[in-house]
Order: sequence, then structure tokens, then C-alpha cells
Amino acid sequence: MRRSGEDFRTIWQKPDDPAVIQIIDQRRLPHEYVVEDLKSWRDGAYAISEMLVRGAPLIGATAAWSLYLAALESRDASDRVEFIRNAATILAATRPTAVNLRWAIDRVLRVLAGTERVDEIENALQQEARDICDEDVEISRGIGEQGLKLIEEISARKSGDTVNVLTHCNAGSLATINWGTATAPVYFARAKGIDVHVWVDETRPRNQGSQLTAWELAENKVPHTLIVDNTGGHLMQHGLVDICITGTDRTTRSGDVANKIGTYLKALAANDNDIPFYVALPSTSIDWSIRDGLAEIPIEERDPDEVARVYGKAGDELLAVQTVGSDTAISNYAFDVTPARLVTGLITERGICAASEDGLTTLFPELAETRTGK
Amino acid sequence: MRRSGEDFRTIWQKPDDPAVIQIIDQRRLPHEYVVEDLKSWRDGAYAISEMLVRGAPLIGATAAWSLYLAALESRDASDRVEFIRNAATILAATRPTAVNLRWAIDRVLRVLAGTERVDEIENALQQEARDICDEDVEISRGIGEQGLKLIEEISARKSGDTVNVLTHCNAGSLATINWGTATAPVYFARAKGIDVHVWVDETRPRNQGSQLTAWELAENKVPHTLIVDNTGGHLMQHGLVDICITGTDRTTRSGDVANKIGTYLKALAANDNDIPFYVALPSTSIDWSIRDGLAEIPIEERDPDEVARVYGKAGDELLAVQTVGSDTAISNYAFDVTPARLVTGLITERGICAASEDGLTTLFPELAETRTGK
Repeated sequence: MRRSGEDFRTIWQKPDDPAVIQIIDQRRLPHEYVVEDLKSWRDGAYAISEMLVRGAPLIGATAAWSLYLAALESRDASDRVEFIRNAATILAATRPTAVNLRWAIDRVLRVLAGTERVDEIENALQQEARDICDEDVEISRGIGEQGLKLIEEISARKSGDTVNVLTHCNAGSLATINWGTATAPVYFARAKGIDVHVWVDETRPRNQGSQLTAWELAENKVPHTLIVDNTGGHLMQHGLVDICITGTDRTTRSGDVANKIGTYLKALAANDNDIPFYVALPSTSIDWSIRDGLAEIPIEERDPDEVARVYGKAGDELLAVQTVGSDTAISNYAFDVTPARLVTGLITERGICAASEDGLTTLFPELAETRTGK
Repeated sequence: MRRSGEDFRTIWQKPDDPAVIQIIDQRRLPHEYVVEDLKSWRDGAYAISEMLVRGAPLIGATAAWSLYLAALESRDASDRVEFIRNAATILAATRPTAVNLRWAIDRVLRVLAGTERVDEIENALQQEARDICDEDVEISRGIGEQGLKLIEEISARKSGDTVNVLTHCNAGSLATINWGTATAPVYFARAKGIDVHVWVDETRPRNQGSQLTAWELAENKVPHTLIVDNTGGHLMQHGLVDICITGTDRTTRSGDVANKIGTYLKALAANDNDIPFYVALPSTSIDWSIRDGLAEIPIEERDPDEVARVYGKAGDELLAVQTVGSDTAISNYAFDVTPARLVTGLITERGICAASEDGLTTLFPELAETRTGK
């Protein structure tokens, strides 16, 4: 991903002080570009729970780096391992739906358990956090290369006319370490000179589409148009969408997709209009332990203020306006589940497969086997 | 409808000066209750185009009252009829999708054409505007009585448990003269002591749900919960919606429903979850001249600023915040078309019918006959 023409990632060690982790405060985009220092694992927990960072892979990476910070902070603890494990427990509770928050934490804890000498803990956890980030970039690259084929096919069928992609929320560079998941095929297509345009769902209540996806597409010079979440169905009815690509926070082994609230509605519209609906995901987002997404994935309910208060710029000031009267109750479900039957395919780092247990098991036999579903 | 416990309508002649028409500036709700004076037909055109008033029936009534104002203003014109006709032409162009804007104007123009003496024009047009309003109240009452039956049935089936209604946009009292269309069955159910609760879609981009429907439900003490437009599908998947009722801006003779953008997505979700999806409409919203809503209903595209700027309260101030960066294009389609196949039934002032030419023709044979479709 690029920012002001420079290549960059979404989380990194501070160049002159590697004991500080840096992130972008994504809540302030697109109006202000602010880099935040994480100096303690508690800063990392705050960044995750308050959504300075969001997106399954970036949440996982932030948790991994937070455990590295915990390792640094554990120097004075009577039991360094216990100190880090306690931090891990609290970090794991910051966002209940994101499956690879837990995945990243478990991975770091395994490294911790396998580190024999206490004075090796810091280096071991630093290396693991780096590896998690590097691997995530490779995963996004894989998803980009796989998804590129779909866009190339459509472009060829349309004789080079614009390929219109619709996406929901931000499964972009900003949600990962680089390239994104849903956006990776778009960036790769753009790099290959394919004429591609993205319809960006605003994605209420937190406006990740208007604030994040639109921002990073603009930074990367990808033609795009913002629409409200209500609009996608109309566009699909009128042939203005060639393919939908979204991300996912958790996908069951049978291909049910938990993603940002409203994804299910777009999948219904795509299905009703014979438009391919793809979900781009790293294999780390697959929850092999469950099959029935509707019954088994807990849906996070978040603060009603996210709905009632809309954040933006007024003059030179960043502030929130209250859109709702005080006599109105508010419900704020953060995710919904799109049943596998509505998903045309899953774009993974290893290839594209059907949203089904067969499809996923064929691509990831070793994962399917070791983590047997109920 | 009630406001602060008092019965009231949404448009009326000023009690001490009947040459002034009064409306609520609905753009300022729910934060401020401001009554605006319309002293000229141009004030009426402004109120319609800038959406101080909105909702098909209220738009029609405002146009009718505006023509009465034009009649008063025509006193010095060389040709009073021509003066009023010119006003009618401009009024008719203020909102292209609302079919009963044109219906109300045509009706007043017929009265104008049938008025033989010039000094009778003012009284004739005043009477016609009053009749249009009174008839609209009766229509809403009819829709309320018909739709009440649906809610009663669900309540009985649920042994008196809460009936959960989902609605989109504002097809409430504020969209009509009183009671509303989609909300009338709810108000009638509430008046009968039925336990009813309304899920209110926020309805981006103009937030008619959070700003208007929530406001009037609160004023009328109807339990309700605001949700973002993305949420309805999730609620329906989990059995939290018993019936959807929306309004319509224009319905074709075959039952295709043009309504606020996003209605189609909710109809898809209702269909996918076997939840009844009803559209409440006065017969004046039926466009007997067309059948294919998708092909034949022009969809208004509105100012991108409606998407980019969200209006609300910050401290004591009412202001708009910019949510989008400046490098992002925006599309703002105002309506979509829900195909008749997704509509369980139409709730009209004469009864409930299938969303089909047969259904509508059986209820309104005289209209179907005189206004033959292509």
C-alpha cells in the first residue's frame, strides 16, 4: 500500500526505538493522518478495543506486538511468563468476534511456552510478531494474485471495459499489514493496468467505507465511488456491479461468513441479480471448530453511541454530531452471517474455492484435519 | 398524530391568517421543532425541493396549498390562470419520482379549469387543497384499519407477545397529513393496546428514520429501536422481525414498488427468511400508466453532499460534519425498485391485495380502467 506515494505498512517498530510499536489512529482518517505510539501492552489492548486498529489480520498483529511489549514490561515481574499470559488473557477479550485475534495470541503463547531461557523471551516474541506480519503480507499477496484472475476474466469478457467491484466495510490495506484482503485483487489489477472501479459502501455505523476504504483507494489512485449502504442493490439491478468482494472476520469450516453488519444484504442482492459474490480471506480467518455460522458465531453488540454520533469534520475541527433524539433506543450489532449458499467462492492465499467444507478442506487439508469441527 | 400530547397535522392554514400555510421544517427534527410560514407558491416549491417537507402525500398536499398561494398572488397578473399554471409547471418539476406530486397538481388544475369566474378561483383552490388533506387523512385511517388486521393476527399467533415491525425511511405521519401510511397500522395497533415494537432503519443518506420516524414514534409513545440500514437482515435471520411495512413513492400497476433506496435489500432479506413484506400505500401512489418498475421509473439522483455531510447536534449547535475525504467521488441514488415478486401484499385504504395487476385492479377497478397502462 502507498501513502503519499511511499510504500508502507499499517504497524511497525519505531525506526529509532524498536521498543515502541507504531500504528495509524484509523479513527481520524480520512481527515487526519496521526501515528500513535504503543509503549505498553495496555496501549495495544486500548488500540484494539477502541478501534484505532481494526480488521482481523491487523488486530492479530497488534495483539502479537502487544505481547512483545508485555515481554519488555515483564522484566521486573516475579514470573515473566505469568505476566505475559495475563496480558494475553485481557488482549483476547478485547474483541469477541475476530477469530485471528485469538489465533495470533495462541501462536505467540506457543512460542512463549517453547522458550526455555527467560532472557530469550523478548527476542523470541519480537521475531514471532515480525513473522506474523511478514506472513500476513505474503497472504495478502497470495489473495491478490488469486483474485486478480477473477478481475482479469471479467475485464476480458467486457473487452477491457471498466470492471466494477463492490466492497463493504474495509478489508483493505488498513485492515491488514499491506494490500488488504478484499482490496488486494483490486490493487493487483490496477498494477496490471486493468480498468477497475470500486463502489465503496459507506458501512454504517462506523463508516469504515467512507473513512478508510475510500481513503486508501484514493491514496493508491484507484477510481472509486462512495455510496450509502442502501445503494448496492439498486446498482446490481442495473448492471452496474460486476463482482462483489468483501472480507470476513470469521468463516466457518462449511463456508458461512461472518463479516461487517450488512454483508448478508449485499450477498442477497448479488444472488438475486446473478452477480458473483466472493469473500477474500486469509486461512487464519477460518474457524475450523464450527460449521453453522448463524447458530455458532456470537455477534458483538457495540456501544449505541456509534450509531447515534457521527464523526467528521466541521470547519477545521473534528467532532461528532448527535443524529438521534434522546427518547430513542438503539441496537448496534456489529456483524452478520452470510450463509455459504450465497457465497460464490472464497479467495484464499492458496487459491479460490467453493464456500463449502469440501472446498476449504481441499485447499487446506492439514488445517481441516488437525482442528476437527464438532 | 400527536406532538407534545396534542393532536395535530403536518400542514395547515395559519389560524389567524389563512393566507399563510404552515409546515414543520422536518430537516431540523428531532433536535428542533420549527414551524415555517409559506407565504408564496415559491416558498412551497422551495419547501418541496429542499425537503422541508417530504413523503409523497405531504408533497402533494404542499403543492396543492402552493397553488392556492399562487391563486392569491395572481391578483395582479394579467392572466391569473396562466400565472397559476406556470407555478404548477415549476412545482411539478421539484421532485421527479413522487407520483402524487403530479397527481395533486393535476387535480388542482382540473378544478382551476372548471372554475368559470375568476373571483371564484381562490376559494375553489382553497377548498381543493383542504379536500386533498382531509381525504389523505381518511386514506391513512383506511390503511391503518386494514394494516391493523395483519398486526392483530401476528399478535394472536404470538399469544400477545410483542409484534416486531421493521420499517424503512419515514412513511409516517410526517410524510402524510396524519397517521402516515406504513406507520398507520402501528398507531392503530398501539391504540388498541397491542404490544407492538418498531425497528427503525436509520435510512441513509438523509436519516429520515433516525430523525423523523424515531421522533414521531417517540412523540406517540410507541416503543421503537433505531438500527443502521445494514442491520435488518441480521434481525430477520434471528427471528426478531415479524413483519416489514414500508411506504412507497410510486407503485406500478403490476405491483413493483419504488421507495427509498435500500427498500429492495430489506425485501430480499424478508423473502429469504419467510417474513411478510408489506407496502402501505394510498391509491394515489399507484402509477397506472406503467408496469415495469425497474425499466420505467426514473430514479432521482440527488446532491452528493447529502452523503458526505451528516447533520446533527454538537453541543447546542446544529451543524453538519463532513465524513468523506475530498478525493472521493459520490453517487446518491434516492430510490430503488422492489419487484412485485418480493412484496407479500399492498395495504391500501380499500383493503389488502396482492402486489399484482390482478390484485390492484380488483380493489380499484375504476382507476385501472380509466388509466390504461402501456
